[in-house]
Amino acid sequence: MKLSESSTENKTPIQLSELETPVLVLDQNTMDRNIGRLQERLAGFNVTLRPHVKTNKSADVAKRIGAPGTPITVSTLKEAEYFLEHGWTDILYAVGIAANKFDHVARLKQRGAEITVILDNVETAVVLAEYCRESNLSLPVLIEIDTDGHRSGVQPDAPLLLEIASRLGKSTEVGGAWLAGVMTHAGASYDCETTAEIEALAEQERAGAVHAAERLRNAGYPAPVVSVGSTPTAHFARSLEGVTEVRAGVYVFFDLVMHGLGVCEQSDIALSVLCTVIGHQKEKGWIITDAGWMAMSRDRGTSKQKVDQGYGVVCDIDGKPIPGLIMLQANQEHGIVGHRDDTSLTPMLPVGTKLRILPNHACATAAQHDSYTVVAGSHTVEAHWPRISGW
Amino acid sequence: MKLSESSTENKTPIQLSELETPVLVLDQNTMDRNIGRLQERLAGFNVTLRPHVKTNKSADVAKRIGAPGTPITVSTLKEAEYFLEHGWTDILYAVGIAANKFDHVARLKQRGAEITVILDNVETAVVLAEYCRESNLSLPVLIEIDTDGHRSGVQPDAPLLLEIASRLGKSTEVGGAWLAGVMTHAGASYDCETTAEIEALAEQERAGAVHAAERLRNAGYPAPVVSVGSTPTAHFARSLEGVTEVRAGVYVFFDLVMHGLGVCEQSDIALSVLCTVIGHQKEKGWIITDAGWMAMSRDRGTSKQKVDQGYGVVCDIDGKPIPGLIMLQANQEHGIVGHRDDTSLTPMLPVGTKLRILPNHACATAAQHDSYTVVAGSHTVEAHWPRISGW
Repeated sequence: MKLSESSTENKTPIQLSELETPVLVLDQNTMDRNIGRLQERLAGFNVTLRPHVKTNKSADVAKRIGAPGTPITVSTLKEAEYFLEHGWTDILYAVGIAANKFDHVARLKQRGAEITVILDNVETAVVLAEYCRESNLSLPVLIEIDTDGHRSGVQPDAPLLLEIASRLGKSTEVGGAWLAGVMTHAGASYDCETTAEIEALAEQERAGAVHAAERLRNAGYPAPVVSVGSTPTAHFARSLEGVTEVRAGVYVFFDLVMHGLGVCEQSDIALSVLCTVIGHQKEKGWIITDAGWMAMSRDRGTSKQKVDQGYGVVCDIDGKPIPGLIMLQANQEHGIVGHRDDTSLTPMLPVGTKLRILPNHACATAAQHDSYTVVAGSHTVEAHWPRISGW
Repeated sequence: MKLSESSTENKTPIQLSELETPVLVLDQNTMDRNIGRLQERLAGFNVTLRPHVKTNKSADVAKRIGAPGTPITVSTLKEAEYFLEHGWTDILYAVGIAANKFDHVARLKQRGAEITVILDNVETAVVLAEYCRESNLSLPVLIEIDTDGHRSGVQPDAPLLLEIASRLGKSTEVGGAWLAGVMTHAGASYDCETTAEIEALAEQERAGAVHAAERLRNAGYPAPVVSVGSTPTAHFARSLEGVTEVRAGVYVFFDLVMHGLGVCEQSDIALSVLCTVIGHQKEKGWIITDAGWMAMSRDRGTSKQKVDQGYGVVCDIDGKPIPGLIMLQANQEHGIVGHRDDTSLTPMLPVGTKLRILPNHACATAAQHDSYTVVAGSHTVEAHWPRISGW
């Protein structure tokens, strides 16, 4: 007993206060709670969760969502490659496929990925079908549906839907590029102002996707997959009738945009950037830190919301928000912190003080870092989890 | 003759049109011209150029500015470490030093870096002096001067300047943390509206730094170094009297913010993001591409300028701007391209078309990528130059 205690003591755990800054901190307790919340919510529906790993880009994080082998969504083929290497095979690449990526998809298939691609136009369907025929590749394809006008996709009612389908095989038995169903992403949910609006948009997302799938089925395509999702709609959908799978990514970490939408509390935000006070401009009520936009990203998602959080909400080293303090401005490696309403009220935190800044947008802030420094509700560093970037 | 020709032919050069997108493209001809322009301009002054490598973070780029051994400026100690490994030793770390970085600085010194640090407050001067005394470290320090109110630094006339100096050694002979001079960065030059304003700010930057240095010299500090600079002021300063070195970083690549300021032409921008048209929303006049904010960054520096360039100016694969086309919106891996004034005028470029997007801010866009795909005025890929990130 004594021996094992002392062997643990030999490895003095590192504390946040000892770290060179800036550093991306992930609280795994908060994260696990967020993961559990969506799992529990979706347990009430007859759907599969296909988490979007574009937010975390980390096998260590993804393992806590679902074991290797569970379905995932990716935003780049590099993510597909990385997660394949770590044991995930059921992968939806959720950005319209371009012809210059066909070879990469084929290589991933050869290496064991059960990859599904998406598209929303006849031109791509034609060249993809030809490519799959020539390379003897069986590749499931979802047609992207535009259910909220925010980006890409085919209108659920458009004749184009059946034109695209006509270029694809009817089912996996036919082989080649075959129509597996539809997918949609109600990204406009990020611009909602009330949870009632999110509920309405979730229904619009569901109804549009299901309607498109029914049109395909009426035309003789089995189209088994109806894939929908965004973090807000996944948390507020009242019905998922006809939906087979739900995608969401940012729910694992949450962020200030999600808080502004009413999807989470600030205390649910699992990510923060640890930084240090390096100076002051006392006359201006400015605190200067060593976390600039390189550490936070340039994302200012809350600037369109009711409460503009600047470049982030400023917390103490325990992750507790300091009343009124936000990151007002950002240079590459400098942050300017001050009181949100009146910088004459800024508390002049001493030089050397460590702060934690909650991000506007978890996907963007995490992308500025190559690893997570993991804590579990305390200052003790439990692990470093690498993450990938690039294409 | 025939043989060597054929052996060259065996290595068929890769063309931009063959690449999987998105990709960060760097035209080295344009870059070399930009490098030459500032070198020529500064040749007329009695100053050293100390380029800021935070923009490029690449030994391959930095080699084209000056051989290993020439002075550089860095924004992180990771840059210092990387450039030291590649032969650069004379390094100014131009962000106010924090106590949690002292050990890292000491390690870099032990490995041969002649590193200089900066600070703007008594608290840091006290702990740094103590650290250097205890570790028997001789470390040159510049006091950061605030010449334009945009960020950190001591006012040129403030009593604080001499208070900070009093905590530092007078010269290298004394050892420890010793006062080597002053530095300033007129970052407000990015907000100027005319080149006349930039000229005036350059003079303000020079005069403030020289005045601070003179106050220190009058107090008995030799303070040999007077370091100033930003890309706009370096290009428009009329006098550099009393200045010993000039820093600039973005001038190597240039970007749309610099173009908006009148510092360069659009044709001087050496960086672009190569992407592919993956779909359309024809009714809206939108072209969808596979370069989103992950490839461009969230930087919208031109949004404050006379001409807002959205997320970037859209060029054809040759790098020639397509009249009226900009990147209007960005999702993580999707860009929305359209006519800047009236999307009914957007030309519906075919699916598969390759485009090159000029960035708002070269530092931010380059930071989203782990290498440069190098061309020299054509479509032929000449090289891949890695770049670093993180801290």
